[in-house]
Amino acid sequence: MSDHSQAPVAPVGAYEPPYYAAFFSTVRTQDQSGYSETDARMEDLVQEVPGYLGMDHAQTPGGLGITVSYFRDADALTQWRTEVEHRAAQQRGRAEWYQSYTLHVAKVERSSGFTRAGVPWRPAAG
Amino acid sequence: MSDHSQAPVAPVGAYEPPYYAAFFSTVRTQDQSGYSETDARMEDLVQEVPGYLGMDHAQTPGGLGITVSYFRDADALTQWRTEVEHRAAQQRGRAEWYQSYTLHVAKVERSSGFTRAGVPWRPAAG
Repeated sequence: MSDHSQAPVAPVGAYEPPYYAAFFSTVRTQDQSGYSETDARMEDLVQEVPGYLGMDHAQTPGGLGITVSYFRDADALTQWRTEVEHRAAQQRGRAEWYQSYTLHVAKVERSSGFTRAGVPWRPAAG
Repeated sequence: MSDHSQAPVAPVGAYEPPYYAAFFSTVRTQDQSGYSETDARMEDLVQEVPGYLGMDHAQTPGGLGITVSYFRDADALTQWRTEVEHRAAQQRGRAEWYQSYTLHVAKVERSSGFTRAGVPWRPAAG
């Protein structure tokens, strides 16, 4: 859920289906105190979940944010969803940080990737 | 695939599963000539596809863009994927506009929405 604009930018690659993804579209409130610390903590924490594959994030300034988290299977996603600190963060998100959101949990059936010639393409494993 | 930052911002709502979603994460090239016109045309065109439910888009300035298109079923998504003008746009995207992208086509199995009290919540139909 963090802002990756400071990091080298590349989308998470195309894994071999099936795998799972949680698509989280948000509009945030004016009061974002504590958000970035919690966000950074969650990004560390999710990497401890076995089967976690990666995360894409985009944020239109003043507009919609989309975070997509990829997992090897439904169990991995459930483990993340029910993680104690993550649950507390979700609750705080509803209380403070989100004006509205939609969560779509989905099974990826097909995927493909493209990288412009000259840029090394690393097939994703996992 | 358009920039919705000028429109009233709200995520696409939670439809009753199952439905389909195409998740498109992109990094764009420096040369974006013709992109916004094609983007606007595609946004008009996709609305003619029976079973099209809506689209979320977020763009980190200078960073990752994520576009999520929602469809009632796999057939609707296939119809959009193979639409003649859309295919031409995809080809031009690879030739000119995208540095890299990943496409994940997924079946949504579970979804939920949240809107802060005081903001009218319109359940999505479709």
